[in-house]
Amino acid sequence: MKLWDKGFSTDKKIDHFTVGNDRELDLLLAKYDVIASKAHAKMLGKIGLITPKETQDLVRELDNIAKTIEQGKFVIEDSFEDMHSKIEYVLTKKLGDTGKKIHTARSRNDQVLVAMHLYLKSELAEIKSEVKVLFDLLLNLADKYKSVLLPGYTHLQIAMPSSFGLWFSAYAESLVDDLYFVDAAYKVADQNPLGSAAGYGSSFPIDRAFTTEEMGFETMKYNVVAAQMGRGKVEKAAAFGMSNIAATLSKMAMDICLYMSQNFNFISFPDELTTGSSIMPHKKNPDVFELVRGKCNKLQAVPNQLILITNNLPSGYHRDLQLVKEVIVPAIQDLKACLEILTFSLREIRVNDAILEDPKYDYLFSVDTLNELVLSGMPFRDAYKKMGKEINEGTFTPKRDIKHTHKGSLGNLCLAEIRKKMEQIA
Amino acid sequence: MKLWDKGFSTDKKIDHFTVGNDRELDLLLAKYDVIASKAHAKMLGKIGLITPKETQDLVRELDNIAKTIEQGKFVIEDSFEDMHSKIEYVLTKKLGDTGKKIHTARSRNDQVLVAMHLYLKSELAEIKSEVKVLFDLLLNLADKYKSVLLPGYTHLQIAMPSSFGLWFSAYAESLVDDLYFVDAAYKVADQNPLGSAAGYGSSFPIDRAFTTEEMGFETMKYNVVAAQMGRGKVEKAAAFGMSNIAATLSKMAMDICLYMSQNFNFISFPDELTTGSSIMPHKKNPDVFELVRGKCNKLQAVPNQLILITNNLPSGYHRDLQLVKEVIVPAIQDLKACLEILTFSLREIRVNDAILEDPKYDYLFSVDTLNELVLSGMPFRDAYKKMGKEINEGTFTPKRDIKHTHKGSLGNLCLAEIRKKMEQIA
Amino acid sequence: MKLWDKGFSTDKKIDHFTVGNDRELDLLLAKYDVIASKAHAKMLGKIGLITPKETQDLVRELDNIAKTIEQGKFVIEDSFEDMHSKIEYVLTKKLGDTGKKIHTARSRNDQVLVAMHLYLKSELAEIKSEVKVLFDLLLNLADKYKSVLLPGYTHLQIAMPSSFGLWFSAYAESLVDDLYFVDAAYKVADQNPLGSAAGYGSSFPIDRAFTTEEMGFETMKYNVVAAQMGRGKVEKAAAFGMSNIAATLSKMAMDICLYMSQNFNFISFPDELTTGSSIMPHKKNPDVFELVRGKCNKLQAVPNQLILITNNLPSGYHRDLQLVKEVIVPAIQDLKACLEILTFSLREIRVNDAILEDPKYDYLFSVDTLNELVLSGMPFRDAYKKMGKEINEGTFTPKRDIKHTHKGSLGNLCLAEIRKKMEQIA
Amino acid sequence: MKLWDKGFSTDKKIDHFTVGNDRELDLLLAKYDVIASKAHAKMLGKIGLITPKETQDLVRELDNIAKTIEQGKFVIEDSFEDMHSKIEYVLTKKLGDTGKKIHTARSRNDQVLVAMHLYLKSELAEIKSEVKVLFDLLLNLADKYKSVLLPGYTHLQIAMPSSFGLWFSAYAESLVDDLYFVDAAYKVADQNPLGSAAGYGSSFPIDRAFTTEEMGFETMKYNVVAAQMGRGKVEKAAAFGMSNIAATLSKMAMDICLYMSQNFNFISFPDELTTGSSIMPHKKNPDVFELVRGKCNKLQAVPNQLILITNNLPSGYHRDLQLVKEVIVPAIQDLKACLEILTFSLREIRVNDAILEDPKYDYLFSVDTLNELVLSGMPFRDAYKKMGKEINEGTFTPKRDIKHTHKGSLGNLCLAEIRKKMEQIA
Repeated sequence: MKLWDKGFSTDKKIDHFTVGNDRELDLLLAKYDVIASKAHAKMLGKIGLITPKETQDLVRELDNIAKTIEQGKFVIEDSFEDMHSKIEYVLTKKLGDTGKKIHTARSRNDQVLVAMHLYLKSELAEIKSEVKVLFDLLLNLADKYKSVLLPGYTHLQIAMPSSFGLWFSAYAESLVDDLYFVDAAYKVADQNPLGSAAGYGSSFPIDRAFTTEEMGFETMKYNVVAAQMGRGKVEKAAAFGMSNIAATLSKMAMDICLYMSQNFNFISFPDELTTGSSIMPHKKNPDVFELVRGKCNKLQAVPNQLILITNNLPSGYHRDLQLVKEVIVPAIQDLKACLEILTFSLREIRVNDAILEDPKYDYLFSVDTLNELVLSGMPFRDAYKKMGKEINEGTFTPKRDIKHTHKGSLGNLCLAEIRKKMEQIA
Repeated sequence: MKLWDKGFSTDKKIDHFTVGNDRELDLLLAKYDVIASKAHAKMLGKIGLITPKETQDLVRELDNIAKTIEQGKFVIEDSFEDMHSKIEYVLTKKLGDTGKKIHTARSRNDQVLVAMHLYLKSELAEIKSEVKVLFDLLLNLADKYKSVLLPGYTHLQIAMPSSFGLWFSAYAESLVDDLYFVDAAYKVADQNPLGSAAGYGSSFPIDRAFTTEEMGFETMKYNVVAAQMGRGKVEKAAAFGMSNIAATLSKMAMDICLYMSQNFNFISFPDELTTGSSIMPHKKNPDVFELVRGKCNKLQAVPNQLILITNNLPSGYHRDLQLVKEVIVPAIQDLKACLEILTFSLREIRVNDAILEDPKYDYLFSVDTLNELVLSGMPFRDAYKKMGKEINEGTFTPKRDIKHTHKGSLGNLCLAEIRKKMEQIA
Repeated sequence: MKLWDKGFSTDKKIDHFTVGNDRELDLLLAKYDVIASKAHAKMLGKIGLITPKETQDLVRELDNIAKTIEQGKFVIEDSFEDMHSKIEYVLTKKLGDTGKKIHTARSRNDQVLVAMHLYLKSELAEIKSEVKVLFDLLLNLADKYKSVLLPGYTHLQIAMPSSFGLWFSAYAESLVDDLYFVDAAYKVADQNPLGSAAGYGSSFPIDRAFTTEEMGFETMKYNVVAAQMGRGKVEKAAAFGMSNIAATLSKMAMDICLYMSQNFNFISFPDELTTGSSIMPHKKNPDVFELVRGKCNKLQAVPNQLILITNNLPSGYHRDLQLVKEVIVPAIQDLKACLEILTFSLREIRVNDAILEDPKYDYLFSVDTLNELVLSGMPFRDAYKKMGKEINEGTFTPKRDIKHTHKGSLGNLCLAEIRKKMEQIA
Repeated sequence: MKLWDKGFSTDKKIDHFTVGNDRELDLLLAKYDVIASKAHAKMLGKIGLITPKETQDLVRELDNIAKTIEQGKFVIEDSFEDMHSKIEYVLTKKLGDTGKKIHTARSRNDQVLVAMHLYLKSELAEIKSEVKVLFDLLLNLADKYKSVLLPGYTHLQIAMPSSFGLWFSAYAESLVDDLYFVDAAYKVADQNPLGSAAGYGSSFPIDRAFTTEEMGFETMKYNVVAAQMGRGKVEKAAAFGMSNIAATLSKMAMDICLYMSQNFNFISFPDELTTGSSIMPHKKNPDVFELVRGKCNKLQAVPNQLILITNNLPSGYHRDLQLVKEVIVPAIQDLKACLEILTFSLREIRVNDAILEDPKYDYLFSVDTLNELVLSGMPFRDAYKKMGKEINEGTFTPKRDIKHTHKGSLGNLCLAEIRKKMEQIA
């Protein structure tokens, strides 16, 4: 059964090609279609397009469907094109003509759009909250290991002293930046598009302010053409929001994979968190972190996928927009999985606290020594040349008692200030 | 059961995260794992690492598995990490210790790699053959409609006369170019990587020339490190090959959607190939072509996805490479579906043969008139100014009997020459 | 002269390869390097690393350089690697050893980073203000043409009535969403990174709170490793912010090119804003809008460019990051040019006010008629079938007096509400 | 002076916006415009559209322009829109009306297209030849260092023995694959598009077979619409061809940067090829290789840039296509610079030949030992468990005399076979 059935049936090949995997993705979205349908039904009642009795009936049956969904029992059979067809079918089966009336003054475009807005709001909020959990863990780890030193690299060359305190909290502070984009995406999603119908509004006197409030949107997307243009755009906004987080997680995973290599040997994880090799018995591989890296790199391709699908399409709905769903929904699931597994795994991190005892790291301390010369009055360029000479001649000996005191340095991590930044946004 | 089980079990969360949807994708690839395993078993027999009896047993059981796969009865249960584990399990259950010996002198990396090469060879050949079918149809349509004129646009402004003959065969000739890249990808895939083991070869005296011939590869990827580097790279090669075809199909779909618009009304399709609207009864929408466009645009994002997953990884295997499979396999299925549906639908195209009767297209003929002035001796720039004046003053009248005679023009389509190009490659 | 000259000179080839086009780009950034250098000099004075006299001298000479830059007279000769070398050279030439002291307690990484933050803040603010100008124009045009109807398309098929009021203000409201991302990018940039030195802070007791306030940053990027990680990331944030605006402009340009086609003929522009053809005298091409579209599509590739350059690099500085500058700086110039030219051109738009008189647009009104049937009590599905029948039988006659009254519909554009959204952010 | 000047001048703003940086890029392309113009002039003479005298005059003056270009004295002043205008201006200044006649039977689209085809053929051939030089060097280095062992990594974990012989020649063999795509791109470019005029051919009886042969094209792009569709597509083909090489260079550069780190210390380069730090005197940074990596990663973004510019444009010329030039031309220059500098620098590579003496690499040999157990009759899984036990208990001692004998392994590099692959294509 299709909403637009005109009495002749399109070829089956076409059917199969056009439906795609909508049914599967719709299981995640159905909850939001029901929420929006309830608001729509109440609104139709409010403006008198349906009777109070019809309103009650529709709301009751929609609540029943919501329960089915919550219990994981909602099924979209192959005979239905998508969740919208299935839900309308259920309503009509239960309520007859009343069931059909839910479709008054809205279109499928409307339904997909508003369900996506509600879904994204919910998922972005959850992502934000998972980021916050990871952030807290990183700050705790930074505090716990604040005095354990680490070589700092530039150009992958040993450069200056760093610390696990700096390393953990750097990723924490970076995540705050990423959330600015999640918030931007949330604002884009937090505007009620319902009422745009096929993209040009309706001649029915619908009450969009009512549905906006009923569904808990901050505001509405007023212009109905702008609302329709949101298809593809609101998902792209979410993808941009996620891309930044993904970049941060990917970078941290890269560091972890490097630091777990025997050539660095800075950190390790319990056996339960590593995997083995089919032919090398001694391997304890960082698969989890490699997959976090790989998935997060793939996630960074999502904005471009969405741009390619939607770009250079003139205004107005095009069927291409259906494909956006199958890109964004799995991406969201992937990011959430990465956040969860990274937080889960980082709790078990083991830090090597004697890294800098290896003499190959001695030169790390050259800049601090150079700075002392400067503080004692020698011009920078001269001190720089003196140090260079000592290093070339092998006479340099490091002074290992580091005193970095300025804000954000390894001796003064400013974890409280970083936490405050997060609190202002999360 | 995992190949690398070391006696303690990794956390279930980790397990779930690392396995991903490998099992599902592996159903498409299992056939090729069996082919490679047979070649490997025969080679092990040839070099004496297993007995002739063991070789026979392994080959027989692998043939049985191949039948199961062909019949669609092969299942990878949740207790298996992937197809490789399942196949080894079946062999071991049937053959005991002999079953285990199939894993001698190879690694899972080897298996994944060679199965992917075989899979891509097969799929690229199929894609090429489907492109050929579409090509033939386009040339037939070009020939059939060679005398039906069409406005040619530049800047979306009416410019010069074109024809359906030109339009159909333009896409045909473009597809030839696209196949050069499919061939390049095929050459990359047509090199046996088996024997690279974990990426650094084996201390067993394996006979790679034998397996190369046995599996029908043109040559082998000699260097074992180069072979391993093929992971991600061979898939990217295929993606590049497909991206060009996708671009051509997408562009044609864009033309079709435009030409079906009431503002152009150049072509139409039977009702069975269009879809309706849930609220606009008069709509006959080109969903099929919009989805071809959208899917082909999404396909053009695949090379970038693969680049992002694999880029800046140092040489050697990384688990990130596992994610490549879940990108390339669905992409191949999508492209094949697009080729099939476009060919299927284009057979039914209906062409409006009176397009140029509309006076808004009169200016199409201005250049030909201008050229006549030039042929009669007037310098080009002067003729250009004279024509501009006539057009501005509204005194221009078109001469509609077009005589374009040069090669590749609307009066001389050179379909045979274009067909010959295709024959040289396909 | 290079900052890191060690007495032997690297090969010239290497030199040429590594310097790239830094000098040219640095002309745009030099202003911000001077601002940051002044703040740094004052801070060095405040903490006693240089004398009050030295501070005064440095600030005065930096002010002189600033004037040179403002007057367009600042030149970076080929003998200098970049602006930083040139500025230090000027200071040293004027002030001797005092000039050298400006480099105390900071590194070139520091300088590039803080100059980029300041530059991006300034440019993002300017972009925002240009967007606001375009927004105002769009709302004015929406108001001016609010009663001129336009066909609304879905699937590029004639669907329902729209209006120029809706069309113009749709793009205006869309731009508000885009600015959420500009604001996010601005927040990322509005954090002082100065003091991260080579990425691990300094052993000098620098006062980062002072420089933060002195340069007008809202806050600082506390963690010095996080500050360094900002290289590439802050530019990517800006690119994300710009990408959304670019997508909106590109879509509008696509609409314009389509609507200028003789097959639509909805709008036109004066001859001064169109271009001609070298062989077709009647052409008036929308080159400006095609270039806006093309440039804005290219701009949407910028985030991916930056991701590819920076992705999978472990933490710490890498020379690759230098390449970010040559991507982001021209992108910013391009977006500003597109905003300016689009605003400039749209002021001259001419609207065809008799579009819907063409009978091919009659079916636009079918849904409204259908809705009237529903309002008069007929169930939706029945009304839908009745309408479908009339249309198929050619008996449908449109009622052209449209009454869309709900918020955001063509009869109730809510321009004031849309303006309010903008005011809350701009 | 513009080709399409109609007597009124477009606004200067528009002018500046539409011309872009064409003049600068055209200096590289002008040579090819002249070649094509000569062929066109001769053809016009052959078919009698101009006299033999006019032909001679045009050819002579074009030869003069060619000399100016070769001597680096060709200038495109700001008063000219592009090279085409300038060249026609010179011809007209010298030859009067005869000069104007060069534009008979072609359009600017034609000129840009054929010049780009010729340019790309030349550049792709040069790139191929530079790749060949690098390939030869890599094989020589592989042979020179074939017995120097290197740890092989999987998951960045120490895995199995590798060698510099394997490492160098792996990149060599990879480059062969990359050239398959360069060849594909070359084939796309090696088709004469001249004669498509504005994209729909000409009513003049032009002789396209003549110009095809005259310019040395293998064949022509017959269909004039297909020829026009080549704009953007032929450049994208080149970009695909280059992207693969870039990926290989980038990966090798990543390895080099890692191997130069003190944590690996596998290779080094003379001081002349490294750069220093402004504050760390001991640094010898691999800037060259980082920039090769970064530039090659940026190059991998080029196909996507071109896709974004050209995608979803209906057939026929659009001004957006002008932007393609400013993407592809610098990309080609960048790739050539990377190839040249990498070859230049690799010649100086210094290899550490005692790497595996460090006991942390002992486990590299575990698989070989395991294989010996298997060869002596122990089932693989049992041998695997025995080895695992020894390693866990610390009783494993490596046997360092590696005997890898199979094709492509470290004891049998098959350099001659790899060279043969290259010879078959280059």
